[in-house]
Amino acid sequence: MFNRLTTQLLKELTDIVGSHCINTDEERLEVYSHDEVKGEKYKHMPEAVVFAESTKQISKVMAFANQHLIPVTPRGAGTGLSGGAVPIKGGIVLSLERMNRIVELDEETLTITVEPGVITDEIQKMAAASGLLYAGDPCSSDASFIGGNLAENAGGNKVVKYGPTGDHVMGIEVVLPDGTVDFFGGKLVKNVTGYDFINLMVGSEGTLGIITKIILKLIPLPEFTVDLLVPFKTVEEAIAFVPKIMIEAHTIPASLEFMDNASLRLAERFLNNELPYSDSAAHLIIGIEGNGREQVADEYEKIGQMCFKYGAQEVFVADNRNTREKIWKARKSIAEAISAFYPDFCMEDVVVPINKIPQLMSFVNELSQREHIETVNFGHAGDGNMHVTFLSAEKTDKIWNDKVEANLKQLYKRVLELGGTLSGEHGIGIKRMPYLPMALSQSQISLIKRVKRAFDPNDILNPGKIC
Amino acid sequence: MFNRLTTQLLKELTDIVGSHCINTDEERLEVYSHDEVKGEKYKHMPEAVVFAESTKQISKVMAFANQHLIPVTPRGAGTGLSGGAVPIKGGIVLSLERMNRIVELDEETLTITVEPGVITDEIQKMAAASGLLYAGDPCSSDASFIGGNLAENAGGNKVVKYGPTGDHVMGIEVVLPDGTVDFFGGKLVKNVTGYDFINLMVGSEGTLGIITKIILKLIPLPEFTVDLLVPFKTVEEAIAFVPKIMIEAHTIPASLEFMDNASLRLAERFLNNELPYSDSAAHLIIGIEGNGREQVADEYEKIGQMCFKYGAQEVFVADNRNTREKIWKARKSIAEAISAFYPDFCMEDVVVPINKIPQLMSFVNELSQREHIETVNFGHAGDGNMHVTFLSAEKTDKIWNDKVEANLKQLYKRVLELGGTLSGEHGIGIKRMPYLPMALSQSQISLIKRVKRAFDPNDILNPGKIC
Repeated sequence: MFNRLTTQLLKELTDIVGSHCINTDEERLEVYSHDEVKGEKYKHMPEAVVFAESTKQISKVMAFANQHLIPVTPRGAGTGLSGGAVPIKGGIVLSLERMNRIVELDEETLTITVEPGVITDEIQKMAAASGLLYAGDPCSSDASFIGGNLAENAGGNKVVKYGPTGDHVMGIEVVLPDGTVDFFGGKLVKNVTGYDFINLMVGSEGTLGIITKIILKLIPLPEFTVDLLVPFKTVEEAIAFVPKIMIEAHTIPASLEFMDNASLRLAERFLNNELPYSDSAAHLIIGIEGNGREQVADEYEKIGQMCFKYGAQEVFVADNRNTREKIWKARKSIAEAISAFYPDFCMEDVVVPINKIPQLMSFVNELSQREHIETVNFGHAGDGNMHVTFLSAEKTDKIWNDKVEANLKQLYKRVLELGGTLSGEHGIGIKRMPYLPMALSQSQISLIKRVKRAFDPNDILNPGKIC
Repeated sequence: MFNRLTTQLLKELTDIVGSHCINTDEERLEVYSHDEVKGEKYKHMPEAVVFAESTKQISKVMAFANQHLIPVTPRGAGTGLSGGAVPIKGGIVLSLERMNRIVELDEETLTITVEPGVITDEIQKMAAASGLLYAGDPCSSDASFIGGNLAENAGGNKVVKYGPTGDHVMGIEVVLPDGTVDFFGGKLVKNVTGYDFINLMVGSEGTLGIITKIILKLIPLPEFTVDLLVPFKTVEEAIAFVPKIMIEAHTIPASLEFMDNASLRLAERFLNNELPYSDSAAHLIIGIEGNGREQVADEYEKIGQMCFKYGAQEVFVADNRNTREKIWKARKSIAEAISAFYPDFCMEDVVVPINKIPQLMSFVNELSQREHIETVNFGHAGDGNMHVTFLSAEKTDKIWNDKVEANLKQLYKRVLELGGTLSGEHGIGIKRMPYLPMALSQSQISLIKRVKRAFDPNDILNPGKIC
C-alpha cells in the first residue's frame, strides 16, 4: 500500500528540502519514534525526519509524498499521550520544531498569529505582556507546541471556563495531503462561509492536513487571579463537592482541578517541595479570575465558605504569584513525576458528565482494589475529565499488559455507562484505537473513514490513527 | 438525477408517516416554498411537506428518500436569511415544527436537552427560571427554532462574549441521509473521541444530516445586566469607538450592537415607539453583565466615561427590565421592519476583523452614494458582523436585481480585501452561492463537495446549497 523511501526517493526528497532539513541517522530517528506514551508497542522508527522551515517546503514534501505514496506523520514537541505522532507506517516524520515564530500580536483585533512550533507558554507570556490572555492552558504548556495543542484539541486547566483549544482558534493555514495550501477562517469572531473546517482540523490528530499557521483569539487579561488549594479528608468529599461549586456558588471558576494523595505525593517528590496538608486524601485547586478586586474577593470567600460546609479541612488562598506558581507547578508536574518514578504506566483521559465524577471515582477505587492494580488519579474535575492512571512499580511484561488491557475495558465500559467517553483531551491516536468501537457506532467510524478519504484519498497523512 | 414524488411514491410515503403528518395542498406548500429572503428567484415549491413527529419517523423518511432519490429539505421556523430551507430541487420539505419539546433541563450538568423545533426564546426563558443562561441570542429568538440556529450556526447579540450557537452545543442526535440515527457528543464539556462532527454539522445548513435532538450548555445566569444606549453624531465616531471598548476598557461586553439612523427610524416606525436621540446618526448598544453589583457599575461607568471621551452625545443607562426590553425590542425588530416597509431588499451579513469596521462602513457609504442605492446598516459591531442592507422603495425588476448584484460584488470584494468574509451568521444557502468562489479557493470548495459526498453520497439532503 505504501512505498518505502528508497535511496533514489531519499535523494529526491533531500533535493527538495535541502540536506540541512533532513536526517536519517538511527540515533536521531529513535527520538522521533515515540511520544510520551510508555511501552515498546507504541514505538515505530521513521525512515527519515524532515525539519520543515516553511509552508512552501511542507507543500513540496506533501506533493512528493502523495505522488510516491510515502506516509508522512506530522510532529510537534512529541509530548502527546496517545501515540498520535508515532510513524507507525514508517515513512517521513515531519517535525514542525523549526517553525517556531510568533508572527504577530495584533492588539486591535485581539489576536495572535503563530507558527505551529511555538511553545504554548510563550504565547501565554507574550499575550500577558500586552495585558491579554491566551486561555489555552494544557499542563504541558512549558513544552508542548501550539500545533500539537490544535492537533489534539488540548484541554488543560482552564477549559471549565474558556473551553478547549479549538474555542480559541480563529484561522488556520493548512497544507493538505496533496500539497495544496489553504487558509480557513481569519481574524474573524464568526464565519459561516462554508463548512467549519477549522474545528474539523482541530482534534483530527494530523490526519487531515498539516497546520502551518494559526490565528488565536485573545481576551483581556483578568486583573485579579486567586487560586484556592483545598484539602479534603476523603476523595469522596472532594469529588462530591466539584459539581456543587458550579451549581450552588452560581459561578464557573477559571480552573477546578483534582489531585488524589498519591498524585500529590508524586509531585512533591519530583519537585522536592512540600504542599500543605500532604496527608490529606485529596486536594482541589479552584481558580478564580475577575476584574474587580472586591468581586474576586467576594467570589473566593463565597466558595471558601462552601468548601468548609462540604467538609474541606482548610482553604489556602494563593493570591500572589509565588504561592500560585507553587500550586500549579505541583499540579502540572504530576504526569512528568509518574513518568520519572514508574517503569511503566497507563495514563487515561476519560471524561464524564460532571455530576457523574463521584460514581466514576468510586468505580476506579473498587477496580483498583479488586484487580490489585496501583492507581493514581488526578485531573480536570471541573469538566469531568479525569486522568485515571494505572501504575507498575516494576518493569512490565505481557501479564501486566494484558491486565491493563482488561482494566481499561472495564474502565471504558463504566465511563460509557455514565454517559462519558474515552478521551477528553489526549486523543485516540494508536493507544485508544482498539477501544474506539466501544464508544462510537459503526456508522460514526465509517463517517470518520469517509471524511478522512475526502481529505486524503491516498491515506498518506498520519496513516493508521484514530480508526 | 432526482426522482419526482409520483402518485405511487406519495402513497408509500403517506403510509410511512401517516396521513396526519403529510400535506400536498398547493396553498400549504406555498408557505414552505421560501424563507425570509425576498424575491421570486428564492422561492421553490416542494412536492410534499412532512411534519415529522419523531426521530424514528425521520429515519424512515430518509431511508425512503435515499432509496428513491427524492430530495429532502429540512426546515425549522423558516426565518432563514439565505434560502437555506428552500427546496430548490423539489421533493419533500421536512418540517421540524412538531418536534418542539424541551426534553430535560439538567441543573447538575448545566445542560438543557431539546428537540429542534423549540423556539430559542423558550430555551432562554426556561434556563433563566432556573438561574441559568442559554447564551445563544439571535435577533430572531422569538420566532426561530433552535434547530435552525444550529443549522446556520446563528450568531446574534451575545457572540462577542459567548461565541456563536456552535459554542453552546455539547451533543446532537442526527439522522444521516441514509436513515441511520447517530449521537455525537453528550453532556460533556470536552471530547476528542474521533473527529468533531458536532461543529461540522453546526452551520452545514442541513446538508449533512437532520439534527433531531440537541444538548446545550448552560452557564450561571449573571446576576446583574445593564445596557447602555449611546447615540453618536456621526456613524464614523460610533464605529471607530467599537474596537476601542475591547482594547482600552480591558473588557469584553456581553453585547455591542450598532444601528444607523435609518435602521433606528425603521424600528421606531414599526414599533410605534420612540427611542432617545432618534436624530442621531448612529446608536450603539453596549451590554454589560456580571455578578457583583458594584463590579457591573464600575464597568459601565468606565465604559460610559470612554463613550464621552470618544464623542458620544449621551449615555443612557438601562438597568431595569422595562428600559432594557425597549432597547432590545428596537434592535431586534429592524429586520422585520425592513421587510414590512420595503417591497424588496437585500440584507447582507458580511463580517470583517473588528478593527476594519470603520473602513467597511466608509466603503458602504461611498458605494451607496456612487451607485445611488438606498442602504440601511446595523449589526453586531462587536464581532465585526454588519448587516449592510440594500433597499428598494418600489416593486423591483431586473434592473434593480442587476444593480444589487453588481453592488454585492463590490461589497464582497472590499470585505475580502479587509480580511473578512461573506457571511457571519446567515449562511450561504442559495443566496450567496454564486459568490462563494470569491471567498473560498477551488480546493476549499472541492473539499466541501467531497465531505458532503462522504455524508450524503446520493446528494438527497438539501441539495443545491452552499456550493
